[in-house]
Amino acid sequence: MKGTVLYGPRDVRFEERDEPKIIEPTDAIIRISATCVCGSDLWPYRGISRFPEPSPMGHEYCGIVEEVGSAVTSVKPGQFVIGSFATSDNTCPHCRAGYQSSCMHREFMTRAQAPVLRVPLADGTLVATPNVPPDDMIPSLLTTSDVLGTGWFAADAANVKPGSTVVVVGDGAVGLLAVLSAKQMGAGRIIAMSRHDSRQKLAGEFGATDIVAERGDEGVARIKELTDGIGADAVLECVGTHDSMMQAINSTRPGGSVGYVGVPHGVELDGEGLFFTHVRLHGGPAPVRRFLPELIDLVWNRKINPGKVFDLTLPLDEVAEGYRAMDERRAIKTLLRP
Amino acid sequence: MKGTVLYGPRDVRFEERDEPKIIEPTDAIIRISATCVCGSDLWPYRGISRFPEPSPMGHEYCGIVEEVGSAVTSVKPGQFVIGSFATSDNTCPHCRAGYQSSCMHREFMTRAQAPVLRVPLADGTLVATPNVPPDDMIPSLLTTSDVLGTGWFAADAANVKPGSTVVVVGDGAVGLLAVLSAKQMGAGRIIAMSRHDSRQKLAGEFGATDIVAERGDEGVARIKELTDGIGADAVLECVGTHDSMMQAINSTRPGGSVGYVGVPHGVELDGEGLFFTHVRLHGGPAPVRRFLPELIDLVWNRKINPGKVFDLTLPLDEVAEGYRAMDERRAIKTLLRP
Repeated sequence: MKGTVLYGPRDVRFEERDEPKIIEPTDAIIRISATCVCGSDLWPYRGISRFPEPSPMGHEYCGIVEEVGSAVTSVKPGQFVIGSFATSDNTCPHCRAGYQSSCMHREFMTRAQAPVLRVPLADGTLVATPNVPPDDMIPSLLTTSDVLGTGWFAADAANVKPGSTVVVVGDGAVGLLAVLSAKQMGAGRIIAMSRHDSRQKLAGEFGATDIVAERGDEGVARIKELTDGIGADAVLECVGTHDSMMQAINSTRPGGSVGYVGVPHGVELDGEGLFFTHVRLHGGPAPVRRFLPELIDLVWNRKINPGKVFDLTLPLDEVAEGYRAMDERRAIKTLLRP
Repeated sequence: MKGTVLYGPRDVRFEERDEPKIIEPTDAIIRISATCVCGSDLWPYRGISRFPEPSPMGHEYCGIVEEVGSAVTSVKPGQFVIGSFATSDNTCPHCRAGYQSSCMHREFMTRAQAPVLRVPLADGTLVATPNVPPDDMIPSLLTTSDVLGTGWFAADAANVKPGSTVVVVGDGAVGLLAVLSAKQMGAGRIIAMSRHDSRQKLAGEFGATDIVAERGDEGVARIKELTDGIGADAVLECVGTHDSMMQAINSTRPGGSVGYVGVPHGVELDGEGLFFTHVRLHGGPAPVRRFLPELIDLVWNRKINPGKVFDLTLPLDEVAEGYRAMDERRAIKTLLRP
């Protein structure tokens, strides 16, 4: 089979690889129905994150189980399943505490931009849908694998409650789905920080009540203005740069919360400064597995349509163009169909 | 009257100052029954925090109201009162959210090591006891002004719940009272990190179930060992150095919380490192005013005896020796009686 491999900055190749096979009795092999390019894939694509050698890419996936190892009991061939970008046994103390992406046996998935995928710890990682879904539902189901789960975690980590005043920093796919998540959790006001027309529009469809185009100190000043000088109850940081993190922290009221899910690059926090903000900070790789049943249910019952973040769909073998389009911000997020 | 002034590193003087008077109609003047030296006073005393000119010192206080401004309605002359180290109107949005130490009209108190004190925003800052307390209760009541309130906030910020496994980093007076606070909140296990016999003993009296004498990476390894490799649910950081903060973060389980109340000095947090710990971080100057009614009640009804942290009592005019004894770790905390 062919799969996606990143050779160096802006050098994505779709090339021959060994077809995955069951290695451990806890593995499953799934035939991918859809996969996609993640905002976090752009860090190595742009040469900002280093990697030592050609890297197989992709960690968002859903599809049909083809085969399971002898120890797998909760999914079976023929089922449509979705899994987290991080594997988990779902039984260790960290998993039981709801932090499956810190599972003691965690692996990060890295080979999902391919037609066939091996998923370790299948019982603790995959969740099956009630039936094989209709084709038009697949994009939304795919989002639960990472991008929606991550936006959802931003809102969860920031303690979004009914009536909360929420700010979302970042208008990429995660930020847009953080807006949708805050809306689902009953936020009273959702201020999306975005300077792109098409993304502002989608933020509005997902539930944003206000748009702030300013950034940095000007952005913070605008948030303070919109909140009577108080700051937001919950700020969802969905970028990962130092500036976006400081913008998030400084937009939060004392006692309010920042949920940060953008993988930090160059973020340094001054302890004394943070101390006097009185802000709560929580984030990390989203424990998607915790949220999968609820999110799948919301999609299955057509209560939410997160698949709208895919504004470009390509055949999997055109994956390189999928990266290019996102890198050049011609696309919010690229869906890939084998 | 005479009051305490810090002139430079290790240069504390008790010298003539103007007696405070009502300036604003919201002020109260109180005659101090007891005050004390705070661990945070040692930062400038040791020359680690800079200050531009001779600084009047002291921010922990309790005493009898002598006079109130024309706008004060909730306390009156003759009452015994305790106030927070930070003034608050207790009506602004930050106060109403429970963050009175970020009150929009906050001032930090700085002149309490003196026989008479002006307290701004008296209505929102001071809480009266039911009656004038017996003399033996005064040390414990005094702790609610800062050191107990701060230890309590560490536990509150770290989400200590009944049954929680708690670690306390720091065996100063705040750390010891953080142990007491965690115990009051129902913690199932309280591991105090301390290497001093007398402090270990007091930690035990306050509710510590385990003592860890190791520090840094060795301390973290010991905590992991004591918690079956999981880490603590809640870690209370009561020091404020970079090392103590990292020790706290690395002792916490994913999804667990660090409550940090030691004023950070030289603490720099790497965003990416923090991200992958999955730790919750909350702290800052303790909103003591939020806790005062409850803490006064616990002391008044002799449910707790936090005044035990005072292992040295001096007449106020010997304040310089009080600083020296704490600096040299001959005393945990010095009580001063005018």
